[in-house]
Amino acid sequence: MTRPFIALDWGTTSFRAYHVNAKGEITDQTSAPEGIMAVKDAKFEDVLEHHIGAWDKGLPVVASGMITSRQGWVECAYVDCPAGADELAKNIRLHKTTSGRNIHFITGLHHNSPSITHDVLRGEETQVIGSLKNGATHFVTPGTHSKIIDVIENKITSFATYMTGETFGLYRNHSILGRLMANDSQDEMAFKHGVEKALEDPAGILHLLFSVRSLGLFNEIKPESLSSYLSGLLIGQEMAHATRHHDKSAAYQVLGSASVGNNYVTALNMAGFHATLGDPLCGVYGQRIVAEQAGVI
Amino acid sequence: MTRPFIALDWGTTSFRAYHVNAKGEITDQTSAPEGIMAVKDAKFEDVLEHHIGAWDKGLPVVASGMITSRQGWVECAYVDCPAGADELAKNIRLHKTTSGRNIHFITGLHHNSPSITHDVLRGEETQVIGSLKNGATHFVTPGTHSKIIDVIENKITSFATYMTGETFGLYRNHSILGRLMANDSQDEMAFKHGVEKALEDPAGILHLLFSVRSLGLFNEIKPESLSSYLSGLLIGQEMAHATRHHDKSAAYQVLGSASVGNNYVTALNMAGFHATLGDPLCGVYGQRIVAEQAGVI
Repeated sequence: MTRPFIALDWGTTSFRAYHVNAKGEITDQTSAPEGIMAVKDAKFEDVLEHHIGAWDKGLPVVASGMITSRQGWVECAYVDCPAGADELAKNIRLHKTTSGRNIHFITGLHHNSPSITHDVLRGEETQVIGSLKNGATHFVTPGTHSKIIDVIENKITSFATYMTGETFGLYRNHSILGRLMANDSQDEMAFKHGVEKALEDPAGILHLLFSVRSLGLFNEIKPESLSSYLSGLLIGQEMAHATRHHDKSAAYQVLGSASVGNNYVTALNMAGFHATLGDPLCGVYGQRIVAEQAGVI
Repeated sequence: MTRPFIALDWGTTSFRAYHVNAKGEITDQTSAPEGIMAVKDAKFEDVLEHHIGAWDKGLPVVASGMITSRQGWVECAYVDCPAGADELAKNIRLHKTTSGRNIHFITGLHHNSPSITHDVLRGEETQVIGSLKNGATHFVTPGTHSKIIDVIENKITSFATYMTGETFGLYRNHSILGRLMANDSQDEMAFKHGVEKALEDPAGILHLLFSVRSLGLFNEIKPESLSSYLSGLLIGQEMAHATRHHDKSAAYQVLGSASVGNNYVTALNMAGFHATLGDPLCGVYGQRIVAEQAGVI
């Protein structure tokens, strides 16, 4: 039987830790907006103990996410695609803290991308490993930099990063498009309208984006719905491109929060693909699988 | 013979005025970074007199640009496409200032766009009117919001706005892509590399943009060249989309400053199109043509 462990998901903007029992059930958890960018002077251990100091120091900690990057705690070299639980387990890296904890870092992946030469991810590999039972062959992990990840026979064979989330924030908060927006509300119709326009003409995005302004100026979209329309344009554009080589039998799974995750499911459905929302705890499941395979839990 | 006049090009971010003699030659000029956004409490007349107070108050002033917008001095209703010098002359609008000047405002155009329903411009119509002698059928006006403008038999029949310039600024100054950039220099090879990638896969822009980061991280593009590469991706993407319905015999003219204008010429050439750089004073020529037709100079 697998041993209990502490699952640590430490990304750019957030910290999440879970107390997992021998059956794989979560018995306690804590989270904070203390991503690696918020940690001063590399005091990662202090931040960790601040949040989980009360948890048994004898439990192995299994960690993944940007915490293994150059800006993180212990930089771990990327593993090349194709990679599955096996390759991740072989490259797990042990770090002993001064407080006596054993931290097992799961590193990220590098892909010799035909389109951009180098593509990289950290954290999403573990979420996908934790979601393989569902039979999907393509995974989407929405976020600042969203990833489209392809799986063949339980191994991640390729992936592509899209700057969708960050781009939304740029236009929403720093561009002229944001000036007409007010009291943003989730407007399903406006979102779908944006997806539709982007699917019709994915290469036209720099032009279509101007319609966020012009349709606002001509009162065809209400100020509170413009951000949903903008989101639809960007997510629709991403999905149009991400699915371009796939036949309609491809099965997608979206690994993200319900709000943004469901938007991706909607866009994928509109593009003609079957898509489901994954389990929000897939990262913990993936860590358990990799750590078990590595024999550290 | 046409009378002398004062040409006023007053846009969002800059103010330019020219003293034009009866032959159409510029005999004096002044400019300032006092675009309409910098004018407080709608004190447009004060700003105007501050800059051209010494110029003869009896001369007609011919104005175009964002000064005719809702945020400008005198809002002028858009004229619908197709429109040429005739339509613009018929819709010229006279405003008498308290200091006794006659200002003739040339309004902008509205296009019932098949892609975004409403598209609009102000100022570029006059630049195009001033450039018709050169035989081009398509014009590009680079800028915060660049415009691709189509002309048939001396009339502007359609146009499309692209958010290229503003988007470049967003990624350069507010995104993670800017963090790896330093000492930006114009690198022709990096620019062309970006154009090439965008022309190959124009719908992939949200993905390709990530390569500004990954190629920087893997030291394949130097920090000082990353902004040229980013610029190439965006301008290449714009040109790929703007030219998609045109056959290779289409002749383009780029109306903009030499630096950014030549980048557009390069991108158009790489896309297989003939392109030249227009006259930087085409806006003044256009104002003269429209004002003459309207009988106000």
